[in-house]
Amino acid sequence: MPKISAKGSSMPESPIRKLVPYAEAAIKKGRKIYQLNIGQPDIKTPKQALDAVRNHDIEVLSYSHSAGFASYRKKLAAYYSKRNIPVNREEIIITTGGSEALLFAMGTIADAGDEIIIPEPFYANYNGFATSSGVKIVPVESKIETNFALPPIKEFEKLITPKTKAILICNPGNPTGYLYTEEEIKQLAEIAIKYDIFLVADEVYREFAYDGAKHFSIMSIPGLENNAIMIDSVSKQYSMCGARIGCLVSRNKEVIATAMKFAQARLSPPTFAQIASEAALSTPQSYFDEVIEEYTSRRNLLVSGLEAIEGVTVARPNGAFYCIAALPVKNADDFAKWLLEEFQLDNETVMVAPAAGFYSTPNTGLNQVRIAYVLKKEDLKRSLVLLKEALKAYNK
Amino acid sequence: MPKISAKGSSMPESPIRKLVPYAEAAIKKGRKIYQLNIGQPDIKTPKQALDAVRNHDIEVLSYSHSAGFASYRKKLAAYYSKRNIPVNREEIIITTGGSEALLFAMGTIADAGDEIIIPEPFYANYNGFATSSGVKIVPVESKIETNFALPPIKEFEKLITPKTKAILICNPGNPTGYLYTEEEIKQLAEIAIKYDIFLVADEVYREFAYDGAKHFSIMSIPGLENNAIMIDSVSKQYSMCGARIGCLVSRNKEVIATAMKFAQARLSPPTFAQIASEAALSTPQSYFDEVIEEYTSRRNLLVSGLEAIEGVTVARPNGAFYCIAALPVKNADDFAKWLLEEFQLDNETVMVAPAAGFYSTPNTGLNQVRIAYVLKKEDLKRSLVLLKEALKAYNK
Repeated sequence: MPKISAKGSSMPESPIRKLVPYAEAAIKKGRKIYQLNIGQPDIKTPKQALDAVRNHDIEVLSYSHSAGFASYRKKLAAYYSKRNIPVNREEIIITTGGSEALLFAMGTIADAGDEIIIPEPFYANYNGFATSSGVKIVPVESKIETNFALPPIKEFEKLITPKTKAILICNPGNPTGYLYTEEEIKQLAEIAIKYDIFLVADEVYREFAYDGAKHFSIMSIPGLENNAIMIDSVSKQYSMCGARIGCLVSRNKEVIATAMKFAQARLSPPTFAQIASEAALSTPQSYFDEVIEEYTSRRNLLVSGLEAIEGVTVARPNGAFYCIAALPVKNADDFAKWLLEEFQLDNETVMVAPAAGFYSTPNTGLNQVRIAYVLKKEDLKRSLVLLKEALKAYNK
Repeated sequence: MPKISAKGSSMPESPIRKLVPYAEAAIKKGRKIYQLNIGQPDIKTPKQALDAVRNHDIEVLSYSHSAGFASYRKKLAAYYSKRNIPVNREEIIITTGGSEALLFAMGTIADAGDEIIIPEPFYANYNGFATSSGVKIVPVESKIETNFALPPIKEFEKLITPKTKAILICNPGNPTGYLYTEEEIKQLAEIAIKYDIFLVADEVYREFAYDGAKHFSIMSIPGLENNAIMIDSVSKQYSMCGARIGCLVSRNKEVIATAMKFAQARLSPPTFAQIASEAALSTPQSYFDEVIEEYTSRRNLLVSGLEAIEGVTVARPNGAFYCIAALPVKNADDFAKWLLEEFQLDNETVMVAPAAGFYSTPNTGLNQVRIAYVLKKEDLKRSLVLLKEALKAYNK
């Protein structure tokens, strides 16, 4: 039998997927599971976007431009400009989700064996894109004690080698919920310029900033134009995860020209999803106001609820819709499995994502879990009760 | 300024794209261009597919299964079974176009520096996927004199090294239009088993076989299960290039499990496009009968028209919707540019794809062009007149 590649064999499995068989077995037993483990929001997709697809008048579903609809990129540039991200449509390549934008970015800036520094814990699929691109992820640890704020810049500097091509951040962060301050972003910009490396920012949770905090983009820094690559996506912003539309944005002409060659090889991003995404740009502000209000109250409920459980520490998130909690258990992986295999209260249980899978350094974050507040408050309340009772039972 | 990767710099530009600036300049001058250079059919997308998207009742556009809708895969397996391709839904991974299926296949079976043997001329974007995967393409030349039939098997054997992971074919072929015989496919299967390598077949033009010829799939060979990987796509079959839906099919469980890790990293294929693709499977046979009839008559018109031009040789295609013609010019690249820059008849000209870009061996096929018969017969007739007059003028 012919052999699988070493690359394929070393492709990491998502830490979230690992629990799926246990969840399926629990569902088979008739158990109800509150799924706090995934970033699939229950928020309704804007009507504008869904209607635009309903009203399509396509007769021949042909390829679109490899960089995406010109009309969409133009409107997107206008949206960014309002967010203090001054770009034009030639500086935007529409991709099949933020995932493809990350793959294009890695291919554009790094060769096999090159290194990208990422503050950990980080979005687990970065591991998959890195493996697939042959890139080595070099983690720099951020800590629950400081809410996962940016690690001291000297920690980054210690890790920079001739193979370092970029620093990659997720802002606001998945899985941490941490929103970097303008000061922190400027520190990163400085180091990127000093060492002549790229600063790649995954800003897909841009609109999810709470308590009046403002998101500050790497694209807003004069002088960083040639170093900055922004990754974006409609998935979370408009609750359109299934569209698979994102984009790569850079004012570095060489980056765009190179990423375009990757884009042309795969011909074009999906047409129906572009129609939805273009229409989504006219979603009224009231939609976002309601969404932010909903997430803020969910976060408040979740964080205070977790803090009230004995032995639980939470890093208070001010962005995105995740938080990391340290539990009074030795191994959150075992606990998460136990929740699905053994625990139940009135035939209900909760599913959380063990956080160790979001760390690149072995044996880190072993007692931590990521909780996504993507369920309505009533379900979050019930989940908190279940978690509290589960911890009691587990530690008996 | 930070450097672009060596990989990014060496990403090939599509041979078709190269002419686009010349075409744009010609259009600016008010010239009408008959575009025979690209594989974008003018055939209408089945109404079933377009209507299914119009009638969607989605409220939250969420991620689908990473392998695609289970319902879609089930129906797809039933379609394949009717084509003597016995697979079940667990052996199918829905991808974002055939492009992504090829990337998953390369990542699954080959590491950086590994080799894949491909009969040339071949679909130019294989170069992009290979570069992006770090894979080396080893060409084996097929010749216009034999209609681009399979090169003798001993030519493949000469090229097999310990780094050879697969033979990749496109059947029916883009850009050749050649449909491999059952005998040829069985020869390839034998050599794949003998050397314990994969046989990857891009079968996206499966349904386009003319003159009563039957497509024979690599999936139809008992004993080849662990070596065979099939690539498919809805793009050409249903004139749905903009959907971006394809699939990777294999009965090798390890291949599927590994490709699934690539699929999970990018979360899911596009939802709206899956709705369209699933519905497309209920397109009535009459649609395909009409399409095949149309393409057959276009091919007949084009081939006999080309043969009637002095100095032109054509490889008669019996599949897909391309043919390669050798022209009485030294350099088809220069000629194709000249067609756009200099030539006009009543302010009209034609655009063809120089074939050298489909060869991996330098200085091969220099006098050849690929012509796609994706335009209606009236336009093909006019294109033939233009081409004939252009050759006359060019060779004066």
